[in-house]
Amino acid sequence: MKNDAITLIMNRKSVRSFTGQVVDNETLEKLARAGMAAPSAKNLQPWGFVIVTNRDTLDKLAERLPYAKMLFEAPAAIVVCGDLAKAGDSPEGYWVQDCSAATQNILLAAEALGLGAVWTGVHPRADRVTTVKDVLKLPDNVIPLNVIPIGYPKGEHQPKDKFKAENIHWQQW
Amino acid sequence: MKNDAITLIMNRKSVRSFTGQVVDNETLEKLARAGMAAPSAKNLQPWGFVIVTNRDTLDKLAERLPYAKMLFEAPAAIVVCGDLAKAGDSPEGYWVQDCSAATQNILLAAEALGLGAVWTGVHPRADRVTTVKDVLKLPDNVIPLNVIPIGYPKGEHQPKDKFKAENIHWQQW
Repeated sequence: MKNDAITLIMNRKSVRSFTGQVVDNETLEKLARAGMAAPSAKNLQPWGFVIVTNRDTLDKLAERLPYAKMLFEAPAAIVVCGDLAKAGDSPEGYWVQDCSAATQNILLAAEALGLGAVWTGVHPRADRVTTVKDVLKLPDNVIPLNVIPIGYPKGEHQPKDKFKAENIHWQQW
Repeated sequence: MKNDAITLIMNRKSVRSFTGQVVDNETLEKLARAGMAAPSAKNLQPWGFVIVTNRDTLDKLAERLPYAKMLFEAPAAIVVCGDLAKAGDSPEGYWVQDCSAATQNILLAAEALGLGAVWTGVHPRADRVTTVKDVLKLPDNVIPLNVIPIGYPKGEHQPKDKFKAENIHWQQW
């Protein structure tokens, strides 16, 4: 189990091509639950998860988001949002960290369940934020961090080997 | 394996108390490698990982960081840093998202290996950033996102149940 979990982390990859197979709602909710298991500063949990399976909504997002065209093919997406009404007096930006950790949990859970997923960035690009807020009817206090297209992988997808020894520093930089 | 990985994600917890047992360098490097397996915008990998096992350095960080006193007890820490020299023309803040995903990988890998760890926030609090940059001799272009004390857990630590049904929205907010 120990090594399996490490293998999962090392093997997670971005999947941008999907079969037509539907992902059931229970599975999608499991992914959102994995997101909620992330750590958050002061345990504020300043997040919300919009699960989209509606074909028309997915297509609208695909049309208007430049790097999320794979949504035309994906049967589902999870949009990870920061909820500033829950961010308390945390410094600006801690919600981004919390929601990014939640996103990584979702990506890993998808990998573990045999699904494919990819993180497409939204915040802090104002035009993308406006698009997603508009399509998903997000309240003013809710900011979309990203859109994660999700489905069953079509074709072969390999993880990138991103190990670089020079990224590790011992004791000091 | 599938369910085990989900269980790992759901059971990861913040550990703030450690036995004196040393964590060997190979294990610490494995954690940093897990960090490097995170996704990053445009695959820029704008990160660096400082692994600290020097008692004097850990104590200095503990003395000067208000929420990282557990470093007095921890045998090691990993400091996840953003390297702005590698951030390209990515919007300000994407490095924070990338490094937060890397951090979550490290926390999960620690959990998988029977270690305890906790995310203590640094950026964007200027005083903490200055402290860590000073102690670890970080170059100007390198910003510490957090400090992760790491060790073998002392006592019992339970994950928080953070599931809230109202955090899940279907089709739109």
